Amino acid sequence: MSETPADKNQPTNESTNIVWHDGEVTRGDRASVLGHQGCTLWLTGLSGSGKSTVGVALEQVLNARGVLSYRLDGDNVRHGLNANLGFGADDRKENIRRIGEVAKLFADAGVVTISSFISPYQADRDQVRKIHEDAGLKFLEVFINTPIEICEQRDPKGLYKKARAGEIKGFTGIDDPYELPTNPEIEVKTGELSIEQCANQLVDALLKHGILKAL
Amino acid sequence: MSETPADKNQPTNESTNIVWHDGEVTRGDRASVLGHQGCTLWLTGLSGSGKSTVGVALEQVLNARGVLSYRLDGDNVRHGLNANLGFGADDRKENIRRIGEVAKLFADAGVVTISSFISPYQADRDQVRKIHEDAGLKFLEVFINTPIEICEQRDPKGLYKKARAGEIKGFTGIDDPYELPTNPEIEVKTGELSIEQCANQLVDALLKHGILKAL
Repeated sequence: MSETPADKNQPTNESTNIVWHDGEVTRGDRASVLGHQGCTLWLTGLSGSGKSTVGVALEQVLNARGVLSYRLDGDNVRHGLNANLGFGADDRKENIRRIGEVAKLFADAGVVTISSFISPYQADRDQVRKIHEDAGLKFLEVFINTPIEICEQRDPKGLYKKARAGEIKGFTGIDDPYELPTNPEIEVKTGELSIEQCANQLVDALLKHGILKAL
Repeated sequence: MSETPADKNQPTNESTNIVWHDGEVTRGDRASVLGHQGCTLWLTGLSGSGKSTVGVALEQVLNARGVLSYRLDGDNVRHGLNANLGFGADDRKENIRRIGEVAKLFADAGVVTISSFISPYQADRDQVRKIHEDAGLKFLEVFINTPIEICEQRDPKGLYKKARAGEIKGFTGIDDPYELPTNPEIEVKTGELSIEQCANQLVDALLKHGILKAL
């Protein structure tokens, strides 16, 4: 790549002298454009606990504040990036690993990333936390703490019914474990609070952790 | 999730009546926050052709214009999302497939996504184009068209030297094919233009394709 070739028809030896990869745009540069930091909010909880509902409400509040957020969920990940994964133990682990890596890239890009997956195992969640923290990125584990009785009563996709009937095997909370978050940054009780209250609880956390600035 | 439970200690039947997933923030909402559309600029070309250099220059120009861009390259993908892939034919294909899916998510989020990989096969590039276009997202294939003689002369990582010495097998352009883009939206000749000219060529394309608005 010639900066100022003396002869346009012989545009080179100089090219090898160029400093490659100099002056990359930094995370701070992107934050200046956006007016906020990036981070990952990792929503974990049982099926029907309200992860997606809280995530959607949160992105509405954030959008209204001029904050760029993006939700990673089964709809946009399982049919695309992770379409070649099944539901066996290894593939479930790889599913969460890939989502964690993508969330990290989004957080690095400056986006308030809202991940919405059951992610039942603490070791998997801890690994996602680690790759964020190793990169100097904020990772907030959000336990959507809704009693299974309420989740099963809601049963928005009819999955508990199928699991109880034995039509689905290995269903989290029924015949597969959900490991309670040992030290989540945020605990949201959707059975006790309104959606708006839940979303605002997360906005408060983003303010407290310095991701957003007060209006 | 109870909106207005009559009795806080029995907060539910109503929860099943809530409309789940209603009112998600749209791509247009995010574009309003950002002031521009998202898209993927897919830089393809030989090792040493200048993909990363052009990508870095472009992100500098975009950042200065207040545009949120993000680069996907070997540094942030091979050590993370694709750390479990090798360099055999299947893994190289899966490498590009995953990067394409991630680029699509970033474009959907509203980011001007700059992907920087050799990606030597037209079929792989076409597949990435397809998933973008199927989702209504702009995909701009950018052929970084630098003669192999110049790439080899630059040889910023010493890879051509190793390939010529037989220390690296299956090196694109030496003993593995690079399939020329059949119909790229943009062709950038880094051997003939300055870095700034190359970056501005891409900004012009973003304007022409309606991703950015004129200043």
